[in-house]
Amino acid sequence: MTSSAVSSLSSPDPAIVLIRPQMGENIGAAARAMWNFGWDRMRLTTPRDGWPNPKAVAMASGAGRLLDEAQVFASTAEAIADCHHVFATTARDRDLNKEVLSPEAAMRTAHQMQSEGARVAILFGPERAGLENDDVMRANSLISIPVNPAFPSLNLAQAVLLLGYEWRKSAGMDAPQRPTTSERAAQVEIEALAQHYEDVLDEAGFFFPPDKAEPMKKNVRNLWSRHAFSSAELRIFHGMLRQLRRWRAAATK
Amino acid sequence: MTSSAVSSLSSPDPAIVLIRPQMGENIGAAARAMWNFGWDRMRLTTPRDGWPNPKAVAMASGAGRLLDEAQVFASTAEAIADCHHVFATTARDRDLNKEVLSPEAAMRTAHQMQSEGARVAILFGPERAGLENDDVMRANSLISIPVNPAFPSLNLAQAVLLLGYEWRKSAGMDAPQRPTTSERAAQVEIEALAQHYEDVLDEAGFFFPPDKAEPMKKNVRNLWSRHAFSSAELRIFHGMLRQLRRWRAAATK
Repeated sequence: MTSSAVSSLSSPDPAIVLIRPQMGENIGAAARAMWNFGWDRMRLTTPRDGWPNPKAVAMASGAGRLLDEAQVFASTAEAIADCHHVFATTARDRDLNKEVLSPEAAMRTAHQMQSEGARVAILFGPERAGLENDDVMRANSLISIPVNPAFPSLNLAQAVLLLGYEWRKSAGMDAPQRPTTSERAAQVEIEALAQHYEDVLDEAGFFFPPDKAEPMKKNVRNLWSRHAFSSAELRIFHGMLRQLRRWRAAATK
Repeated sequence: MTSSAVSSLSSPDPAIVLIRPQMGENIGAAARAMWNFGWDRMRLTTPRDGWPNPKAVAMASGAGRLLDEAQVFASTAEAIADCHHVFATTARDRDLNKEVLSPEAAMRTAHQMQSEGARVAILFGPERAGLENDDVMRANSLISIPVNPAFPSLNLAQAVLLLGYEWRKSAGMDAPQRPTTSERAAQVEIEALAQHYEDVLDEAGFFFPPDKAEPMKKNVRNLWSRHAFSSAELRIFHGMLRQLRRWRAAATK
């Protein structure tokens, strides 16, 4: 399922609102991070270097469409006017008496709201300074990313990336595509392999001295049953042993 | 709970292994991403532009210590020699019949292994090209990041960031207790076994016809890396092969 499939069922995906972004490169990198996880609705308030911004375009390569379609607003209030629930990402602890959520919990909540028809926005502050209290006040919930307290310096695109990742995960799209795993071997195949090795190793004098033979045989049998071998793997083990036996037979001629 | 609190109980945190990284800037950005989530054990194999790299240092500001302490290796095999479980991050689907995990599941597994005393490594491929099959073959599990299929272009530091984020998230989790298994073999032991089999099978004419030799060798190597063998089990595999070789040698006399 793609995020567009989600949005077709209900509201559009969250608006990613960059508040007073400074360097064009960072706007471009944020666009890429959005599109990496299927987000494409960018909003900006008063980008410092004007708009459009050629440096943003250069950096966004592959996600330039998001910049073309970005909506620019004069204030935070206008940027979120049509939204029902606003999340604000914040690095610092703020004593604002608002709900603070992990990225995971926030994106789960956002999905839920969207499925109920609500329009959701996520605010990201300008580089360095972060959101001002006046922006944060307009948010319904805060999102705090659990970084290393000794080095909490995420940049704008990284913060967008982590939220987009959690968004996509909570849409159920994180299940990796399993490459076709070959069929797990059945017990009868395991038994056949165990017997093949036991017979050849017996002939080769492996189970020696005789009073150790039984525990040694058990150890070898355990090798085959303890691990989840596929049928294809068992064929390789058979093949190796057959070849070693032929090699020996050739030497006796 | 911080990751250092975890590691003080058991093994060190995962080694983050950058395979043949190209631009110094990307190595520096990866160091920052690691330290954002508390990882500090960087390993490199054959960085393209040599080592140390001033561009990496410039980019890593705040995480420069990781570069000072980074260990440089000549090959993937050497970089993971002391590790018990190796994860490889991979964008492309590969039909290698290995377990493929989401970042979350992989980091949960890694925490659990670490708490059992295992040393874990996570491989990241070079920019653009990604890991080669030869590197991936040495991994026990693959990690697939659920990006937008229409725009799957994560850079190195972003991939490191997402894994570090999931690592830190799962640091608080109570890892379920696995039954104590006998000591898991380290990669250097797996490599020695793989080489032993490859050498003897080569001598025995197993890798035939010549144009199939390389895929056949890969299949055999995959046998050893795909399953969690203990050191004791590897000794049995060595022992069987040694005996079959002796058996053959006796026939030539």
